[in-house]
Amino acid sequence: MSLRGAKPNEIIFTGSATESNCLALKGIALARQSGHIIISSIEHACIIEAAKWLEKQGFEITRLKVDKHGLVDLNDVKKAIKKNTILVSIMHANNEIGTIQPIKEIGEIIRKKSEILNSTFAKTSVGRQKSKIYFHIDASQSFGKISIDVNKMNIDLLTASSHKMYGPKGAACLFIREGIKIEPILLGGGHEKGLRSSTVNIPAIIGFSEAIKICQKEMFIENKRLSKLRDKLIKGILNKIPDSYLNGHLTKRLPNNVNFWFSGIEGESIVIQLDLLGIATSTGSACSSEKLEPSHVLLAIGLEHHQAHGSLRLSLGRWTTEKDIDYVLKILPGVIKNLRKISPFK
Amino acid sequence: MSLRGAKPNEIIFTGSATESNCLALKGIALARQSGHIIISSIEHACIIEAAKWLEKQGFEITRLKVDKHGLVDLNDVKKAIKKNTILVSIMHANNEIGTIQPIKEIGEIIRKKSEILNSTFAKTSVGRQKSKIYFHIDASQSFGKISIDVNKMNIDLLTASSHKMYGPKGAACLFIREGIKIEPILLGGGHEKGLRSSTVNIPAIIGFSEAIKICQKEMFIENKRLSKLRDKLIKGILNKIPDSYLNGHLTKRLPNNVNFWFSGIEGESIVIQLDLLGIATSTGSACSSEKLEPSHVLLAIGLEHHQAHGSLRLSLGRWTTEKDIDYVLKILPGVIKNLRKISPFK
Repeated sequence: MSLRGAKPNEIIFTGSATESNCLALKGIALARQSGHIIISSIEHACIIEAAKWLEKQGFEITRLKVDKHGLVDLNDVKKAIKKNTILVSIMHANNEIGTIQPIKEIGEIIRKKSEILNSTFAKTSVGRQKSKIYFHIDASQSFGKISIDVNKMNIDLLTASSHKMYGPKGAACLFIREGIKIEPILLGGGHEKGLRSSTVNIPAIIGFSEAIKICQKEMFIENKRLSKLRDKLIKGILNKIPDSYLNGHLTKRLPNNVNFWFSGIEGESIVIQLDLLGIATSTGSACSSEKLEPSHVLLAIGLEHHQAHGSLRLSLGRWTTEKDIDYVLKILPGVIKNLRKISPFK
Repeated sequence: MSLRGAKPNEIIFTGSATESNCLALKGIALARQSGHIIISSIEHACIIEAAKWLEKQGFEITRLKVDKHGLVDLNDVKKAIKKNTILVSIMHANNEIGTIQPIKEIGEIIRKKSEILNSTFAKTSVGRQKSKIYFHIDASQSFGKISIDVNKMNIDLLTASSHKMYGPKGAACLFIREGIKIEPILLGGGHEKGLRSSTVNIPAIIGFSEAIKICQKEMFIENKRLSKLRDKLIKGILNKIPDSYLNGHLTKRLPNNVNFWFSGIEGESIVIQLDLLGIATSTGSACSSEKLEPSHVLLAIGLEHHQAHGSLRLSLGRWTTEKDIDYVLKILPGVIKNLRKISPFK
């Protein structure tokens, strides 16, 4: 297991990214007992729901807005931090629209604010340790795809997931900087330094570790290759399909993510048509596939309900070739055109 | 997935038996908000620790004593149930000493007490539903080995584990009787009916289901075969090794479990000697293998510290043959004799 800047004893294994994220939020909050937590409005459902649960337990939650590209405003981060802030949790890259947050800059702000609060606390002789603001990032989508250094980025906790990087399901990890107190959710035999009791899923963890090794070896070249394909797909769609709009940022974006909305039609009908033609796509997060509500991420970047429902997510991966991109660019314009013809929305 | 008396919609999948047990205890307690919980003193560490955590949150916990065989006294169960009891959690079979609890009889007591309390509550017009006492059993060791009927045994919640029955690690389940409210621990996308958010580990669950099918097909014959081998091993040790004592009940016992204490020596040294001779054994629970304290189960059945430390657990399984039993009976007496010769305890 290798995460730049992290020591081996700072990583524990869990069963899923959801578990790691819940453990980070609940664990820090319950260990600190009270305080203020900052998240963004486009976090994964597990962060949003864990924050909602903590709010019910009396914790104060700030949900930062994002701009039309899905970016958190650094000034908003600065303004949101208060004397009683205990944790900031911002996802590295969004699972639906691929936008990459300025994690290093957010980390810097948190570090500085934390130092100021620490020195104020020291003067008033209130417990120094208690005023530290921890920074957690959900790197489920980015780890193995873009480089991360927990020290340079001032990250205190980080979530990474095995099956998002071609490893087996059932394994994830949580980086927890040495000395940070966290209350476990799963109690029992005291596995993973007492922070996650459960029989350790060795086969899944070995698979996860192998997946990490391969991703790290290939990351630099694969990032370049996928970015090129991604940009070809984005430009092709924008050129070939009228009234098509890219969701998320053009460049501050995961190399494997493309997300569009097409006016006048429903994303679900595009998914079905493309599926029949051998192209697997989705409208949003797999975790919300049973829900009918529009994506909270697309609403947060300013899309109307009907625009969010007209959105399509295309993911690239290790086995995506230029031929695949050409095929999508050949097929998609006709699919959109035909669907628009029969659409009741026009 | 088949558990006698359970409907498919009453079963959710989790990542481990520890998670299922924590979810059962925390989930029921937090949904009911306050009340009294009964467990036995020989539960698995996850139940003991979850109960301890709930005690800190203000819940009242009763820990039932067991007799020298590890059996819970039915009168103790009757006496322990109070007006505000919300949950009784008793393991079906103990992981260390194999003792099988009278689950059907305990279930019957809980059902009757619950009915009496319900009618009293109804008379005093306090919420009827709230007075129901739920019965959870940790069947990690028994499911797939001995037959269970959730209706006949009046079980409301049940934990079963995949890798305890030759399935892959990383999968477990929790039976939750229809209509029971439970607060989830892992929040997010709302998988498993909202009770366990996390990407569903389909490969592990399929493996678990296959393991269940095989166990159910073989259970009757395998139970008979193993019980015979177990009894041969127990009788052989008692006959051949002086000052050897069986831990747990002679007949109310898992077909695959044998546990002895040998006076004058340490269990760990027996484990090492046997390992060198090709026999894999343990001193207690795998979950406590990093701990030096004597087993809480062995202390609970009345063993002294030195007796608990002198105990050895031998597990039988699908691939254990009569030849293996004969080999252990040939080897073990000499190992014990030699260790006693060099023991500082004598």
